[in-house]
Amino acid sequence: MLTPRFDAAGLVTAVVTDEASGTLLMVAHMNAEALDLTIRTGIAHYWSRSRSVLWKKGETSGALQTVREMRVDCDQDAVWIKVAVAKPEDTCHTHRPTCFYRSVELGQGGGALRQD
Amino acid sequence: MLTPRFDAAGLVTAVVTDEASGTLLMVAHMNAEALDLTIRTGIAHYWSRSRSVLWKKGETSGALQTVREMRVDCDQDAVWIKVAVAKPEDTCHTHRPTCFYRSVELGQGGGALRQD
Repeated sequence: MLTPRFDAAGLVTAVVTDEASGTLLMVAHMNAEALDLTIRTGIAHYWSRSRSVLWKKGETSGALQTVREMRVDCDQDAVWIKVAVAKPEDTCHTHRPTCFYRSVELGQGGGALRQD
Repeated sequence: MLTPRFDAAGLVTAVVTDEASGTLLMVAHMNAEALDLTIRTGIAHYWSRSRSVLWKKGETSGALQTVREMRVDCDQDAVWIKVAVAKPEDTCHTHRPTCFYRSVELGQGGGALRQD
């Protein structure tokens, strides 16, 4: 059975990828209740660290995430969920289909951001 | 330019996927030095929270990670790196090619783990 290793704030990290494209959509956090609701309902729930509330992703925006698969890492402090998104254009609060919409230049003198 | 938003411990989350397969390999953390070294050298460096040391992944095991692409999320507290691994079978300390080698059963009464 899953025995999550919650951090000092009672959270595990959730890595969220698109089940079809494999794109990383977002990184979020789950407390015990969010994790339990996600497993039982198959709809992604998180803990909002900024608002300190349970957060059913997409409840307001419509960008609900249906969980197709959940995996857990070796030390059980991170889960990976592969999801189908109801309204992909609103996955990120910036109204983009992923939070990772910028690349970081590599190399000496790197660090520049580019939207691509 | 990248302006990382480090947490109280001085860390950002690093999501590490295989550049070829797209598989999630591991979730780790970077402090400012690890992030800078990763950008400048193109080889993944992390901060080991358990050992409290800078950690050049694979320095001991040989499972070095060459970074092909780095992306950053909207609030710049997480980076996504796509890597090529020198010795994939030793990516996880359990001697597996990914830390996410177990799935979590979904649904009412879910939570069972399965190696698949």
